[in-house]
Amino acid sequence: MSDRFFASDNASGVHPEVMAAIASANAGHAVGYGDDPWTASATKALGRVFGRKSSVYFVYNGTGANVLGIQSALRAHNAVICTDCSHINVDECGAVERFTGAKLLPVPSPSGRLDPARIEPLLSVSGVPHHSQPRVVSITQATEVGTVYSVDEIRELSRFCRRHDLVLHMDGARISNAAVSLGLGLYEASGKLGVDILSLGGTKNGLMFGEAVVFFRSDLADEFEFIRKQGTQLASKMRYIAAGFEALFATDLWERNARHANEMATYLCERLDTLPEVEVVQPVHANGCFVKLPQSAIPRVRKSFFFYVWDEPLGVVRFMCSYDTTREDVDALVAAIGDAVGGVQ
Amino acid sequence: MSDRFFASDNASGVHPEVMAAIASANAGHAVGYGDDPWTASATKALGRVFGRKSSVYFVYNGTGANVLGIQSALRAHNAVICTDCSHINVDECGAVERFTGAKLLPVPSPSGRLDPARIEPLLSVSGVPHHSQPRVVSITQATEVGTVYSVDEIRELSRFCRRHDLVLHMDGARISNAAVSLGLGLYEASGKLGVDILSLGGTKNGLMFGEAVVFFRSDLADEFEFIRKQGTQLASKMRYIAAGFEALFATDLWERNARHANEMATYLCERLDTLPEVEVVQPVHANGCFVKLPQSAIPRVRKSFFFYVWDEPLGVVRFMCSYDTTREDVDALVAAIGDAVGGVQ
Amino acid sequence: MSDRFFASDNASGVHPEVMAAIASANAGHAVGYGDDPWTASATKALGRVFGRKSSVYFVYNGTGANVLGIQSALRAHNAVICTDCSHINVDECGAVERFTGAKLLPVPSPSGRLDPARIEPLLSVSGVPHHSQPRVVSITQATEVGTVYSVDEIRELSRFCRRHDLVLHMDGARISNAAVSLGLGLYEASGKLGVDILSLGGTKNGLMFGEAVVFFRSDLADEFEFIRKQGTQLASKMRYIAAGFEALFATDLWERNARHANEMATYLCERLDTLPEVEVVQPVHANGCFVKLPQSAIPRVRKSFFFYVWDEPLGVVRFMCSYDTTREDVDALVAAIGDAVGGVQ
Amino acid sequence: MSDRFFASDNASGVHPEVMAAIASANAGHAVGYGDDPWTASATKALGRVFGRKSSVYFVYNGTGANVLGIQSALRAHNAVICTDCSHINVDECGAVERFTGAKLLPVPSPSGRLDPARIEPLLSVSGVPHHSQPRVVSITQATEVGTVYSVDEIRELSRFCRRHDLVLHMDGARISNAAVSLGLGLYEASGKLGVDILSLGGTKNGLMFGEAVVFFRSDLADEFEFIRKQGTQLASKMRYIAAGFEALFATDLWERNARHANEMATYLCERLDTLPEVEVVQPVHANGCFVKLPQSAIPRVRKSFFFYVWDEPLGVVRFMCSYDTTREDVDALVAAIGDAVGGVQ
Repeated sequence: MSDRFFASDNASGVHPEVMAAIASANAGHAVGYGDDPWTASATKALGRVFGRKSSVYFVYNGTGANVLGIQSALRAHNAVICTDCSHINVDECGAVERFTGAKLLPVPSPSGRLDPARIEPLLSVSGVPHHSQPRVVSITQATEVGTVYSVDEIRELSRFCRRHDLVLHMDGARISNAAVSLGLGLYEASGKLGVDILSLGGTKNGLMFGEAVVFFRSDLADEFEFIRKQGTQLASKMRYIAAGFEALFATDLWERNARHANEMATYLCERLDTLPEVEVVQPVHANGCFVKLPQSAIPRVRKSFFFYVWDEPLGVVRFMCSYDTTREDVDALVAAIGDAVGGVQ
Repeated sequence: MSDRFFASDNASGVHPEVMAAIASANAGHAVGYGDDPWTASATKALGRVFGRKSSVYFVYNGTGANVLGIQSALRAHNAVICTDCSHINVDECGAVERFTGAKLLPVPSPSGRLDPARIEPLLSVSGVPHHSQPRVVSITQATEVGTVYSVDEIRELSRFCRRHDLVLHMDGARISNAAVSLGLGLYEASGKLGVDILSLGGTKNGLMFGEAVVFFRSDLADEFEFIRKQGTQLASKMRYIAAGFEALFATDLWERNARHANEMATYLCERLDTLPEVEVVQPVHANGCFVKLPQSAIPRVRKSFFFYVWDEPLGVVRFMCSYDTTREDVDALVAAIGDAVGGVQ
Repeated sequence: MSDRFFASDNASGVHPEVMAAIASANAGHAVGYGDDPWTASATKALGRVFGRKSSVYFVYNGTGANVLGIQSALRAHNAVICTDCSHINVDECGAVERFTGAKLLPVPSPSGRLDPARIEPLLSVSGVPHHSQPRVVSITQATEVGTVYSVDEIRELSRFCRRHDLVLHMDGARISNAAVSLGLGLYEASGKLGVDILSLGGTKNGLMFGEAVVFFRSDLADEFEFIRKQGTQLASKMRYIAAGFEALFATDLWERNARHANEMATYLCERLDTLPEVEVVQPVHANGCFVKLPQSAIPRVRKSFFFYVWDEPLGVVRFMCSYDTTREDVDALVAAIGDAVGGVQ
Repeated sequence: MSDRFFASDNASGVHPEVMAAIASANAGHAVGYGDDPWTASATKALGRVFGRKSSVYFVYNGTGANVLGIQSALRAHNAVICTDCSHINVDECGAVERFTGAKLLPVPSPSGRLDPARIEPLLSVSGVPHHSQPRVVSITQATEVGTVYSVDEIRELSRFCRRHDLVLHMDGARISNAAVSLGLGLYEASGKLGVDILSLGGTKNGLMFGEAVVFFRSDLADEFEFIRKQGTQLASKMRYIAAGFEALFATDLWERNARHANEMATYLCERLDTLPEVEVVQPVHANGCFVKLPQSAIPRVRKSFFFYVWDEPLGVVRFMCSYDTTREDVDALVAAIGDAVGGVQ
């Protein structure tokens, strides 16, 4: 079994520049719960990245960021529109329902993307007390199936949301990969396109831990400090989260890391595309590679590499590339798949 | 203003041995969410510390540990008996009520400690559907006012709880300081005395982040993996929490750190006791020092040192000592207080 | 506009025998919250109906019965499997999610019915902490689209649930109509087939208000008295609910009422079937009639009769018959539809 | 054992005028969930009672009214300030915490009343994320110990609330008794004094079931229709609740009933006051009578009359009078107490 994983981009460790920043924050005493110089500096730096109207709050992880960000925007009788494969719908053990009391309205979406045409029919319940009232539209960028919303697609969604008094939330666990894919900065890929709340993920791009909730509408952020504390997501030694964030996002490290991960995914898919019986089933916009393998090949490849089966019946598997995935890692995986598929024939 | 803080023991940074362990965990790829060798090793090591019947789960922080540990033991129509000054009652922004739906029944306790005589009257509602049914007794060790329950006190509480089918939860944010104070090991100071669920705190004793929930009754832990995930407290790169825990608790570091902090608090209180107009209002069992200052002295001391006023009307302030508090730090604080009090005269 | 409604069977008032029972309960003082002779008598009578192992609790309404019954069987990290058109999924403003914290897993079902083949794939997440764990299967009898599960279908479901440690909940808002349709008694149509928790509805069959939660497994009912009180569903003057229930369910009134309603629905559909351009789209098993009308006919019929459009794009409308729907009511509706459809041609 | 109860004013049945109104609402079909002529008429009538700015919503019961009214005004990180003996704190099985996620901050109050001096210290946590933020002040009128806030007391509280951006909620389970006691109309005793949200109780004053939430600030009522539905408190056959409310509150029936109940309580206390060893411990402002009996007398009286012990250790018991309590009922109770106390001597 290889010790290089394509299971998730969170299998990678901490990027050395991030680790150095964390170590350098380990100096003397600091007031807890974010009232320290590192948090002040990182918050300011991220404010420069995300614009004057943004407000930035550090939390522990992505589920925390998603849940608390969404909670800020709705009440228990509201509903959140998302895709059926979204992380909040599938992979957070029902945390959004649990924390907010609200209903998720998952929309089937093979491409991982939402669009106004899929959302509009869900608004017909508007004003009728028997039904949860849609209030938040949550999109994931890059999506759970490795695709990326285009600039126009997000603009169209945000205009639609504004017209219907809906809040647009972006689960940006892989926003860096998406921004690089679009050739945009982080703000240009989020708030500037009309996103109201961003879960800014860094753990999958080289951080040790921590996520940020970025609000682009101050009214939604009003009471977030209380929501975060009550939501168990206020870190006492916040300086270590902050130092990591500044190292990643106030430099070009986020971009370098994401670009590399994306390139590796592209390289992987290009190579896999040449193999017989292997079908790339999603365009590679970011750092994920979704391919269909012959059923019998899957356990064979799994003997050498750890990865996840995405769709059991269809034989679709997911390979995630990371900032530290090497060309040699990819070559080894492709070789293992080639052997497994060859053995099938 | 001094850059040495007596505000809280979480003002200290990460102990160098812990930082080294974290850095050494930064090696290659690892499966996320706790399925990695570091988590396996730390879990095993803590299992040795807490005994065969224990089960150990890492979470992000103390509020998370308290809330989710307590949630494991009750349903929404239950109540949690605690002191009025307990962290869960005062300092977690209502997180227990929010997560569990249960009611807190805070009992006035100047010493920070509960005892059966204060609990028993609250059980008279038992079986009557109009009233929240007591199910958990939560104690803090060392307490929020720096005192420590004796072995006999905890044994008496745990016997009482067993007799009344109550679950005994211990908020052990400073369990290391208490254990050192009692001259006991960590298990001897918790599970062995009849505690059912322990929030095992390390952040205040030299960790970067992370807390553990230790169950001494397997039936209570049954579904904790789901409770933790849904509760937003499952870390994806858990290896860094685990490495820190192993460095602190599978060696004698927890004890060295706690002993030093306790000694500094004792030294501080001994010195303060000699000052005129300064009254030590709680016995120093652990690493906290609670003293009454003349009202006008408080702002003067605050010009030099950052600390918290515990009881505004009474003029009681709190000084917390940490693993890295030095004798010089204490001397400087005492000097500042002496000046301020002198100025009062 | 006619003052006879086919919008819902709850448009009917209180059956005279029920009203008489309520009036006769208005005699003197009685202890509140169910500790009165009427509640004792009704509970005993329903115990005879539902068998020795049953326990019966009165609540205010169907949403309350569904939510609190389901809450009794699960924890917040669980999931409830139901149809996409189920009342709990569509018509209770997200109450189940709100009260229980659990996730609904709605399964598309044109016939309104669930079966093991649709449920089984949802169990693949079992034991994985990232996903809500299925714990309750909720079926509606008669279903929201007017169909009725057969005896064999429910038996198969209950066996499947037992095998997978799932709790089978039945939303019996129209259990009377279903039982009559199946030629069974109320117990024979619920607990005897393996249902664990029944929401026993009567309001749509002639009661003024009130619903009962019937447990067929005592372990699930253990703490229901607290769940009901905390859930705001404990009536202080419970005698009036109880008196109505006894009048309806401890006599053959439930059966007479339901039989009449079912017959009217059958008669209505038979007559509509003869009209051109009108298509009966669901078999008439109970008291609901679902037909497809030409789009332009719908507003015309609505000028004379109040009813609900079930599926806007498809032009499917719902007509519900009640215990007091008369043959003349049906004839008048059919005439109005005939006119509207005729006008279309 | 007498069949006349002093346990609670909800031991009385339905007043004949209310029962007649309910019976007369049982006429033909009506649209469910409040869209019927009786609800329209009752809502309009109550609007005349409570003023142009009021909005009125019917729910099932007092706990539902309290919980959902309060929920309308706060978020989960808020706190509700109330007395320690308040119904929401003691007698609703933790429903407020459960539904709202908020914390109750109960203030000790032997008189059952709050005042600004008791509230102000709780506001010191304002703005600090570690602590639940006070947002609602909830008072009960008449109080749980039979006293009544004066006009000046409520005005002072409402001014204080406005100054501190707090919402003033009144649990008016016995607002009729209080209004009569103060010589005021219902609006004059609530909204006009600055109350923002009123739980308008009628069940204890002659209704069969139902309570109303009256908002005097439209911003708080904005989404109440959804909150009510999701909170399981929307009645399908609402006409029967509405008819009762109109019969009680749009006539002088509420006043006649309450006046009689108050008079009986006054008469009872006057007579008890003449007995040796019986001490009236609260002034009789409304329809409750709180007296201290010798401990050994209590079980003796209980052989003849059902009532509640209010404070076990002190020997204080509660007698509630109702609209249908007769002078003979009171005389019989006084005789029984006289015998029991005489027997003590």
